[in-house]
Amino acid sequence: MYATVMHGPGDVRYERVEDPSILKPTDAIIKLSATCICGSDLWPYRGLQAQNGPAHMGHEYCGTVVEVGAAVRTIRPGQFVVGSFCLSDNTCPHCQFGFQSSCQQREFMSGAQAPYARVPLADGTLVATAEMPDADMIPHMLAVSDVLGTGWYAADAAGVREGGTVVVVGDGAVGLMGVLAASQMGAARIIAMSRHPDRQKLARDFGATEIVEERGEDGIARIMDMTNGIGAESVLECVGMEQSMQQAMGICRPGGTIGYVGVPHGVNLDGQKLFFNQQRMLGGPAPVRRFLPDLMDRVLQGRIQPGRVFDLVLPIEQVAEGYKAMDERRAIKTMLRVDA
Amino acid sequence: MYATVMHGPGDVRYERVEDPSILKPTDAIIKLSATCICGSDLWPYRGLQAQNGPAHMGHEYCGTVVEVGAAVRTIRPGQFVVGSFCLSDNTCPHCQFGFQSSCQQREFMSGAQAPYARVPLADGTLVATAEMPDADMIPHMLAVSDVLGTGWYAADAAGVREGGTVVVVGDGAVGLMGVLAASQMGAARIIAMSRHPDRQKLARDFGATEIVEERGEDGIARIMDMTNGIGAESVLECVGMEQSMQQAMGICRPGGTIGYVGVPHGVNLDGQKLFFNQQRMLGGPAPVRRFLPDLMDRVLQGRIQPGRVFDLVLPIEQVAEGYKAMDERRAIKTMLRVDA
Repeated sequence: MYATVMHGPGDVRYERVEDPSILKPTDAIIKLSATCICGSDLWPYRGLQAQNGPAHMGHEYCGTVVEVGAAVRTIRPGQFVVGSFCLSDNTCPHCQFGFQSSCQQREFMSGAQAPYARVPLADGTLVATAEMPDADMIPHMLAVSDVLGTGWYAADAAGVREGGTVVVVGDGAVGLMGVLAASQMGAARIIAMSRHPDRQKLARDFGATEIVEERGEDGIARIMDMTNGIGAESVLECVGMEQSMQQAMGICRPGGTIGYVGVPHGVNLDGQKLFFNQQRMLGGPAPVRRFLPDLMDRVLQGRIQPGRVFDLVLPIEQVAEGYKAMDERRAIKTMLRVDA
Repeated sequence: MYATVMHGPGDVRYERVEDPSILKPTDAIIKLSATCICGSDLWPYRGLQAQNGPAHMGHEYCGTVVEVGAAVRTIRPGQFVVGSFCLSDNTCPHCQFGFQSSCQQREFMSGAQAPYARVPLADGTLVATAEMPDADMIPHMLAVSDVLGTGWYAADAAGVREGGTVVVVGDGAVGLMGVLAASQMGAARIIAMSRHPDRQKLARDFGATEIVEERGEDGIARIMDMTNGIGAESVLECVGMEQSMQQAMGICRPGGTIGYVGVPHGVNLDGQKLFFNQQRMLGGPAPVRRFLPDLMDRVLQGRIQPGRVFDLVLPIEQVAEGYKAMDERRAIKTMLRVDA
């Protein structure tokens, strides 16, 4: 088959590769209904993250099971499934504790920007629907796999509660999903920090009650002003840069919580500052598996439309353009159609 | 009166000072029943924390109110009171949120290693008992003021729950109080990391179920072994050094929580490591005021004897020896008798 391979910074190709096959008895092979490009794929694309040789890209996926290994018990060919970008057995102590993204057998998904993909630890990782969903559900189900699951975890980690005040730092796809999550969790006030009109509009559609365009020290001052000098109870840090983390720390009230889901790049925290700020912090790769059944239900019941975050849809052959559009910020998030 | 003044590293004197007096209408003056020396007093004593000129030492206190300012409403002369080392109004949004140690009017107590002391923000800071406690209650009531309150906060911040597994890093007075707190909160397993036989004994008396003598990498390996490779759900970091923080991070399970109460000195946290460790963290100066009524009740009901942490009792005139004994680790914590 053809699939997406990154050969180096800026060099993404849709090229001939070997068909995926069952390598371990716990694997499944799925035929993808659609796939997409993640903000984290831009780190190596921009040369900001070292890469050893060509990489099979893609870790967000949903589709139909076509084959399973001999040890797979609960997943069957013909089922429509969604999985997480973190592969987990869902039985180890960390999984049972709700942190499947730290599973003792954890692997990270790869090779999903393709018509077919191998999913290791299929029983633990995949969640099947009762019926084949309608075609218009596909973008929303795909979003659950990573971007919504990650935004949801950010809100969960930040302790968002009914009636609470939430600030979302970062207006990328994950930040927008964080807004949606906070809204679903019943936050009274959701302030999205964004300076792009199209993203502001989407943030409002997803439930943001206020928008702050300023960033850095000005952004901090604005939020403090809006909260009577108190700061926010829950802050979602959805970027992973030094500036965004400092911004989050500048606006979180003492005893409040920062949920951070942007993989930190060059972020260093001074212990004493952290101490006197007295903010709770929880980050990490999202344990999407914990949230999958609930989020899939919300999608199927029509309560949320997370797939609206895809503002560019391309046939998978044009994946290189999809990367370029996101790199140049012409697109928030690119969905790739797989019509094979 | 005479009081404790630190003139520089290693130079503590009990010398003539001005009597404390009401400076603001919200102040109270108390006659101390007893006072003590804090582990944090050793930072400047050891020259590890800059100090500008002579400092009136002491921030742990209980005693009888002798005078109140014109604006004090709830505290009256003659009452026995305990207060926190953090002075707070107990009415601002941060106080109402349970984080009185980040009160918008926060000050830090000083000058309590003396027969009399001024307590600012008396209404918000002090908690009075219904009756004058018996003399044998004084060490326990004094301990509530900081060392127990801080250990309790460490356990609270670390999310200690009934049936949970807890590790306490640091066998100083605060760590030992963390053990007591975890025990009161119903933890099933409390592992104290300690290499001193006398402290191990006290830890067991306070509720530790196991002792680990190893530290650093060996200590981490031992704890991981004891928890089947999982790590602990709640870790209390009661030291504040780089090594102790790394130890705490090495033994906390993903999704678990580190409550850290040792003021970090030279601690730097790598954002990416923190992220992938996926541990919740909450630190800061303890909001002792939140816990005061409950902890004072526990003492008065005879359910806890936190004052057992004082293993050296001296008349306040010998305060210099009290510092020396703690500096040389001959004493865990020194109580100072005030018989004036």
